[in-house]
Amino acid sequence: MQYLQQIKSPDDIKTMNMSELKVLAQEIRETLIQVVSENGGHLAPNLGVVELTLALHMVFHTPEDKIIWDVGHQSYVHKLLTGRYEQFHTVRTLDGLSGFPKRSESEHDAFGAGHSSTSISAAVGFAKARDLRGGKNNVIAVIGDGAMTGGMAFEALENAGHMDSNIIVILNDNEMSIDPNVGALAEYLSRARSNPAYTKSKDDVEELLKKIPGIGDKMFKAADKLKDSLKYLLVPGVLFEEFGFKYYGPINGHDLPALMTVLENVKGINRPVLIHVETKKGKGYAPAEKNPDLFHGVSPFHIQTGELKKKSTVPTYTSVFGKTLAELGAQDDRIVGITAAMGKGTGINVFQEQFPARTIDVGIAEEHAVTMAAAMALDGYKPVVAIYSTFLQRAYDQVMHDVALQNAPVVFCLDRAGLVGDDGPTHHGIFDVSYLRHIPNMVCMAPKDENELRHMLNSALTYNCPVAMRYPRGEGLGVPMDEALQVLPLGKAEVLQEGDKVTLLALGSMVHIAELAAERLQAELGITPTVINARFAKPLDADTILQYAGQDTLLVTLEEQAVTGGFGSAVLELYNQHGIDARNVLTIGIADSFVQHGNTARLKEMQGLDVESVVAKVKERLG
Amino acid sequence: MQYLQQIKSPDDIKTMNMSELKVLAQEIRETLIQVVSENGGHLAPNLGVVELTLALHMVFHTPEDKIIWDVGHQSYVHKLLTGRYEQFHTVRTLDGLSGFPKRSESEHDAFGAGHSSTSISAAVGFAKARDLRGGKNNVIAVIGDGAMTGGMAFEALENAGHMDSNIIVILNDNEMSIDPNVGALAEYLSRARSNPAYTKSKDDVEELLKKIPGIGDKMFKAADKLKDSLKYLLVPGVLFEEFGFKYYGPINGHDLPALMTVLENVKGINRPVLIHVETKKGKGYAPAEKNPDLFHGVSPFHIQTGELKKKSTVPTYTSVFGKTLAELGAQDDRIVGITAAMGKGTGINVFQEQFPARTIDVGIAEEHAVTMAAAMALDGYKPVVAIYSTFLQRAYDQVMHDVALQNAPVVFCLDRAGLVGDDGPTHHGIFDVSYLRHIPNMVCMAPKDENELRHMLNSALTYNCPVAMRYPRGEGLGVPMDEALQVLPLGKAEVLQEGDKVTLLALGSMVHIAELAAERLQAELGITPTVINARFAKPLDADTILQYAGQDTLLVTLEEQAVTGGFGSAVLELYNQHGIDARNVLTIGIADSFVQHGNTARLKEMQGLDVESVVAKVKERLG
Repeated sequence: MQYLQQIKSPDDIKTMNMSELKVLAQEIRETLIQVVSENGGHLAPNLGVVELTLALHMVFHTPEDKIIWDVGHQSYVHKLLTGRYEQFHTVRTLDGLSGFPKRSESEHDAFGAGHSSTSISAAVGFAKARDLRGGKNNVIAVIGDGAMTGGMAFEALENAGHMDSNIIVILNDNEMSIDPNVGALAEYLSRARSNPAYTKSKDDVEELLKKIPGIGDKMFKAADKLKDSLKYLLVPGVLFEEFGFKYYGPINGHDLPALMTVLENVKGINRPVLIHVETKKGKGYAPAEKNPDLFHGVSPFHIQTGELKKKSTVPTYTSVFGKTLAELGAQDDRIVGITAAMGKGTGINVFQEQFPARTIDVGIAEEHAVTMAAAMALDGYKPVVAIYSTFLQRAYDQVMHDVALQNAPVVFCLDRAGLVGDDGPTHHGIFDVSYLRHIPNMVCMAPKDENELRHMLNSALTYNCPVAMRYPRGEGLGVPMDEALQVLPLGKAEVLQEGDKVTLLALGSMVHIAELAAERLQAELGITPTVINARFAKPLDADTILQYAGQDTLLVTLEEQAVTGGFGSAVLELYNQHGIDARNVLTIGIADSFVQHGNTARLKEMQGLDVESVVAKVKERLG
Repeated sequence: MQYLQQIKSPDDIKTMNMSELKVLAQEIRETLIQVVSENGGHLAPNLGVVELTLALHMVFHTPEDKIIWDVGHQSYVHKLLTGRYEQFHTVRTLDGLSGFPKRSESEHDAFGAGHSSTSISAAVGFAKARDLRGGKNNVIAVIGDGAMTGGMAFEALENAGHMDSNIIVILNDNEMSIDPNVGALAEYLSRARSNPAYTKSKDDVEELLKKIPGIGDKMFKAADKLKDSLKYLLVPGVLFEEFGFKYYGPINGHDLPALMTVLENVKGINRPVLIHVETKKGKGYAPAEKNPDLFHGVSPFHIQTGELKKKSTVPTYTSVFGKTLAELGAQDDRIVGITAAMGKGTGINVFQEQFPARTIDVGIAEEHAVTMAAAMALDGYKPVVAIYSTFLQRAYDQVMHDVALQNAPVVFCLDRAGLVGDDGPTHHGIFDVSYLRHIPNMVCMAPKDENELRHMLNSALTYNCPVAMRYPRGEGLGVPMDEALQVLPLGKAEVLQEGDKVTLLALGSMVHIAELAAERLQAELGITPTVINARFAKPLDADTILQYAGQDTLLVTLEEQAVTGGFGSAVLELYNQHGIDARNVLTIGIADSFVQHGNTARLKEMQGLDVESVVAKVKERLG
């Protein structure tokens, strides 16, 4: 590394010339590939923005100027240029650098991110603050074409377009979010991309108009309007111009001088500007260019071949979900699969292969997805919305107002529920029971393993009410899989082992932990705990739980979820309603604070969700 | 009523001629004015859509065709035409008609509403369902220009614009949501409105182009593109055309024949269509035309004068909030007031009058509002987001991901917390403690009266962390108001009365009920309950609560909020954490189901939140 290791702050690149910067870009790409091949992470998006990030730091001065990265998985290059090269090998590891912008990590990270479509709103906030204090700094939001489909990005565009103020939006158009983009905006951008001549020919048309002879009064007026409207005519940015933005582009996002020129031009301009930059995901690393999907967020891989280091033998929850949904879809043509730009991430793609007409990918648009699903459910279909637990937060109101209030039988399959590991606090799915449980009419459940997931999905589709089903990221337990699908009775728990003195009442991923803890307690203390697979966080199986809730029984609730307002809290409510002393209830779950990123197993230990911790807590309570 | 009372279903109007329909329109207006003058309700929006609704029911056939009313406060006319004339006098009263579309009320109400910007998503859902089953029915979303600014409306437009399928969006453009519209879309629509000639002159330009002599090859190509792009040129609907919609308009929304013609034209068209209709809010009733804001949602009034029947002498929570914010704003120029199209509804308008530069109305765009506020808070400002409790649900993820995770000191002032009465389930603010309490870093509080609201707002601005403060709709208690503002210690409750045997631990609006219940218990049983104003649902004042939480003390939690996951649940968690027997805790709050519309006092009785019910429950528990 000739240059990269010497860069302690963005100031250090400002004196470099183009050929040096070109070498630097190469060094950055090597570093990205090297580190991500070991740690895993968002490779393709970062390879795509090397030149863009260099251009931004050549032209602007952070931290005075604010660069806001939408979603933020493309901020690695920015991290390398802002004094974090030495620590970069720790990215996404416990206590190491975050894979997303994080204010506590650097003054150059103006705004944290992880969820999509927030950057323009944040930019508007920084711009308004600057204007109020009479500042002069630039505010730049960098947003992908996928994130641009999120509703709040439009809300922000609309608000920003109204401002007579410096705000720069860079549309990083790589033709895909995580899955290839869908919808009208994607088509629009593709039109813009495919006709770069449009921009040029605007001049031709102006020439042409000048040549028109003998224009009558009426024609003259029309021509006047025509001129005024010329910007709409052949410029691809008409959509953004309609919102009040001055549009530049499309610009080759790997042409550093071109990028710097346009950024210099818009710097300090007192009006909203949108720069449409075309980048290639995975740029500079052949396997990632060929398979940007896989290398979007990738697990550790061999650099030479691009092959993943770890080949899993145990199926993931995601793949079991996808396969089961497809199986059910073959039996019932009312089943519809819905995803918000996460077909592969959620396993909906498996269903999609067989039932493309019954699969709807709305793009990054969770709110729309949920309300659309409500309408389909009310019209006789069986929509299954597959979504990450943390992303359903975006549609909380739609779940409440459009689904639950109308008791629409939509099935929400919440992938990535619980701790997700390296992606950290913006991606942990540790609040869904808390944010869904108080919604009237909702059923909340969680399978103990990937086999039960199959039965639960089958069951959920029969309950005829809104159902949310949560399951973890990653591999299942490797349990044997049933062929035939059962219908699990609504609101009934499963007693896995009858014992006495201690009842371990576990939800979803914690059932296995409970079983292992029971074995340990048996071995170490000679007691046989009752082990219950709760299955339902709502409605609770009051009969079963209370049967094992004697005054002398230590009842331990276990959930990979926030203890506040969660499953354990529901059990406390149940005890209270039935007038039972709850001093002997121990609620184990995630403490009331955000959880950092890092290895999932280690995070679980830190939260006391591992077997060791559970056994220790039970022993302590037993005295 | 010559015609209206005979209309039992939309079929009954289909045989009427234009002059009969004109009389019918008049009768509808009279009925609207008459009933709303007595019951209160959304008068101006309904007066504005009389002809539009008639046209829709003349041309389409519900329930096969689906008409989806966005927000739904403009559905009264639709109700009158779909067999609900006889019951219409019950609108917004207990067990009477809802003020919003409601599926359980009529098969003609395809989709319930209350919150904004959901209609196009629902329409997409119905259209997809229809296409899957090979149906032919029309799907029509009617959405206001205000609601169109909501992000999810754009998400849906984007998705719909991509469909080769019948979906009709009617943009009901009345130049205002509840407050006059703001932002780029409003400007765009106003441009379209002010230049109706645009549509006509398109032909002129085509003529003009034909006349161009001697075009070389290059020019010819440009002209070709030009022709292709002509639709962008002079047509005001370019924004929507960009999204893939065929645009018609603007059309005079009070010209029934014109409306019917355009609807007939688009009926059954196999592509997304947007019809831009201009209506006048309050049309046909002079006081409402003059003051559409007041008559948007109006309380009972005198028809002759348009004056409100009830003049309040006690200040509302809203007005005290507005006044106090303005007072604080004068002392601290970092305070910024933020609203999502609810300046008057939330009282932000009072602040705005004095500090227009520090007031931001983002339009109906709650998500954007919250994330923008986060950025401003992180940049040194003190944003106060004033919003209805139920509407903050729309921004749950932004509160979590952008505010709380970054510990941004945004103050959320949740007006309309608790039961709101006539507007019903979509507007009751009965979940905020449950959906905010589990968010790390959040402070949740509620003042016992309008005077304490002043101190709480002052306090919230000093806590330097995210704070939500909830208070009810309507008048305060009429208590004396302090001049000087205090800072209430974070997480400290207020003991109002020390007693024994019973502790009434109340949150916000329930403190007054607790005090009255205590008096009754004293008078009737001779016991002196301890009465505590909890002030904080999070963090709980553990010391104070536990001090009065003895084994022999009945502790009653009182909240105007869902018991599930709410304040009472937090107290149960607290007991559990401290190893205290919670059998003597009685949690009083709203049961786990949606609450219908009706008189607030009556709804409170039904939920057991009135003094009588509280006393009865305490007596029962005391045996």
